[in-house]
Amino acid sequence: MTQPFRVVIVGAGFGGLEAARALARAGPPRGTVEVTLVDRQNHHLFQPLLYQVATAALSPGDIAWPARSIFRRQRNLAVIMAEVAGVDTEARLVHTREGLALPYDALMLATGTTHSYFGRDEWAAVAPGLKTIADATEIRGRLLLAFERAEIAADADEQRRLLTFAVVGGGPTGVEMAGAMVELARHTLRGEFRRIDPAAMTRVVLIEAGPRLLPSFPEDLSRYAHRSLERMGVQVLTETLVTGCDGEGVQCGDGRRIPASTIVWAAGVTATPAGTWIEAPRDRAGRITVMPDLSVPGHPEIFAIGDLAAATDAEGRPVPGIAPAAKQMGRYVGRLLAARAAGGQRSPAPPFVYRHYGDLATIGRRSAVVALGRIRLTGLIGWWFWGIAHIWFLIGFRSRVVVSFEWLWSYLTFQRGARLITWRRPRGGGDAPGRG
Amino acid sequence: MTQPFRVVIVGAGFGGLEAARALARAGPPRGTVEVTLVDRQNHHLFQPLLYQVATAALSPGDIAWPARSIFRRQRNLAVIMAEVAGVDTEARLVHTREGLALPYDALMLATGTTHSYFGRDEWAAVAPGLKTIADATEIRGRLLLAFERAEIAADADEQRRLLTFAVVGGGPTGVEMAGAMVELARHTLRGEFRRIDPAAMTRVVLIEAGPRLLPSFPEDLSRYAHRSLERMGVQVLTETLVTGCDGEGVQCGDGRRIPASTIVWAAGVTATPAGTWIEAPRDRAGRITVMPDLSVPGHPEIFAIGDLAAATDAEGRPVPGIAPAAKQMGRYVGRLLAARAAGGQRSPAPPFVYRHYGDLATIGRRSAVVALGRIRLTGLIGWWFWGIAHIWFLIGFRSRVVVSFEWLWSYLTFQRGARLITWRRPRGGGDAPGRG
Repeated sequence: MTQPFRVVIVGAGFGGLEAARALARAGPPRGTVEVTLVDRQNHHLFQPLLYQVATAALSPGDIAWPARSIFRRQRNLAVIMAEVAGVDTEARLVHTREGLALPYDALMLATGTTHSYFGRDEWAAVAPGLKTIADATEIRGRLLLAFERAEIAADADEQRRLLTFAVVGGGPTGVEMAGAMVELARHTLRGEFRRIDPAAMTRVVLIEAGPRLLPSFPEDLSRYAHRSLERMGVQVLTETLVTGCDGEGVQCGDGRRIPASTIVWAAGVTATPAGTWIEAPRDRAGRITVMPDLSVPGHPEIFAIGDLAAATDAEGRPVPGIAPAAKQMGRYVGRLLAARAAGGQRSPAPPFVYRHYGDLATIGRRSAVVALGRIRLTGLIGWWFWGIAHIWFLIGFRSRVVVSFEWLWSYLTFQRGARLITWRRPRGGGDAPGRG
Repeated sequence: MTQPFRVVIVGAGFGGLEAARALARAGPPRGTVEVTLVDRQNHHLFQPLLYQVATAALSPGDIAWPARSIFRRQRNLAVIMAEVAGVDTEARLVHTREGLALPYDALMLATGTTHSYFGRDEWAAVAPGLKTIADATEIRGRLLLAFERAEIAADADEQRRLLTFAVVGGGPTGVEMAGAMVELARHTLRGEFRRIDPAAMTRVVLIEAGPRLLPSFPEDLSRYAHRSLERMGVQVLTETLVTGCDGEGVQCGDGRRIPASTIVWAAGVTATPAGTWIEAPRDRAGRITVMPDLSVPGHPEIFAIGDLAAATDAEGRPVPGIAPAAKQMGRYVGRLLAARAAGGQRSPAPPFVYRHYGDLATIGRRSAVVALGRIRLTGLIGWWFWGIAHIWFLIGFRSRVVVSFEWLWSYLTFQRGARLITWRRPRGGGDAPGRG
């Protein structure tokens, strides 16, 4: 048979997954496309619900699936768990730290973004971000441990500091984290401590540099989210720049100092270094500036999709870094390559056209904001829409059942199913003297 | 009111939990007992199912519950997450590393056991044991990573080594781990790899120093387990001493060398150092030798229960280190102290009498061994009994529903719900370049 057309996809996020799926029908016997999906993790993560792992509502297994079990039946695809070290664009090889050299006829980069501390990387240790399961269980442990430490704290100042939680960044992740954290304290932990009253003493501060929360949302929904969070007991600071993070708390540009034991970083993201592998032109956020067909300038065989790509829509507005956009890009490039492999591609390729369906973010129990074109949903209706939409987009029957049940149970009991501090404690190792 | 009678319980395992429950009715307004439950973890762990977390079948949150939410309604009890540093038996104070000094009128030590490498602690790094959630997710990650590495391994020898898994110790944990590991390879991973065939290439070796598996079980059940495991594809080595563990594999006393990438330690346990806190007489396994009322010789106010106590039954046989025994001891001491606090204790206290209900261990899909007095259950019936018994002993409605569903789903699909490698990888940190 003819030489296979080899496609390498780096990154098993929303974009990479969708691209791989779009290439399924282009494989033998119908076509000749062979796909290799490379990721440094063994799982695809449903990041929109990661904040619920960080706040003990869901287990990691509920929102993550092994990439290779997702594609077990796609015979023209091989999943490889490896960390890309670089790309040889001359020889068309992807090199991994494990020593692999993966040849490609077409390369898709879908490695997404990582936290950006605006050059202050030392903040990372005290203000973890929320991108991976390890991040989420780390934050979960810090949240829960703060209450445990406050219960045994000697003086009131220390208790106050331990029970103050700062969230930096007022985008969807920041809003959802702040809402979930205050509900954890107000509802879930109520009555479980003997020396502290989490409901009364917990302080959650949400800090946004810009003029409003959810900047990508319509203004009225930003106002709604702001009001709702304040009503829930979150202290919202807009137009407040964070100039310092340390073990003791947050320093704000206006001179204000917030003593806080726990800081969650939901502010800046920057593109992963994929752009440097191929020395592609990048914008200030490190995202690869792409051609209308999402290919990399000068490299018609290399494509950047998802959060990694600095793409624009028909009106020249930047395509937002959200899951639906990544999926659309993945599907577009997947189909484009399927056509190219089949030799049936019109040239030039029709440009990628982004379709924005809407924005949604949950604020808390029975409250969410949804913008679908001109339609606005808030409160209970928005919350239902948000919940059903997210269940819908989960992968597989099992996760839908488990997440639905966990949510129903949490809704009825105010409890959370994964309130665990699971890391190995620095002293004494993991074999836990002190456990019966 | 009268001075409260202060009971400190160290360890929130089966023994500590049961003791705390037994003291519920002895609190105000009925009695004066005030209980402090201390554990270095924030959760009670259902250890009998921990091997299912280690083999990706269950999530940690399914079998662990925050100690303080278990006791939220027991108003005479306070939970403290702290690590005990020592006990001042003169001043009757429990000192913690966090700087607490907890006064007690009665002290219950229920800190259980930890892995014992027979003095070869350097083996711990290459042959982790299974006691905590951190242990389980560590082993889970090593198992799954071995298959990922084998998929990209260059030569066949390295593949063979990567796909060889050694379990040291033929007790219930070793048997259950070996069975679950071989089923993971034979069923769950079937068809998910492109370069290796896990079903055909995986080798699980179960190594037991003694003459038979499950030494605490009736001999016919040991034989049954042995045959069943071999039929499933496990290589069982009895009367084989392990004389060395390293990154390359296992060295056996008979000179045999087993190249293995992954080693699970299910052999020896030793008591946690609680005995040294109070300089109590201990047996060779470090367990505290106790009086008939489970008190520590010379300290009628200090009790050792569960795996930490070297107790004997009516016939002078040692009480086994299993959950039901720990629960019985906890209940006994709890009631004894409730009576003592109420001033209504007959002296001397009636001795603790252990009642052995039976032994059970699962081997794999539709196969378990159960010994209840003279009754023997094996195969499917034993498996059903084992499953129902474990669901029954889980805490709370949520866990029973979730675990039942996970088991049903796994049974029907051969899939597992938590196949995640979640640790932060040494290189690159947790913020995951390579994720879309």
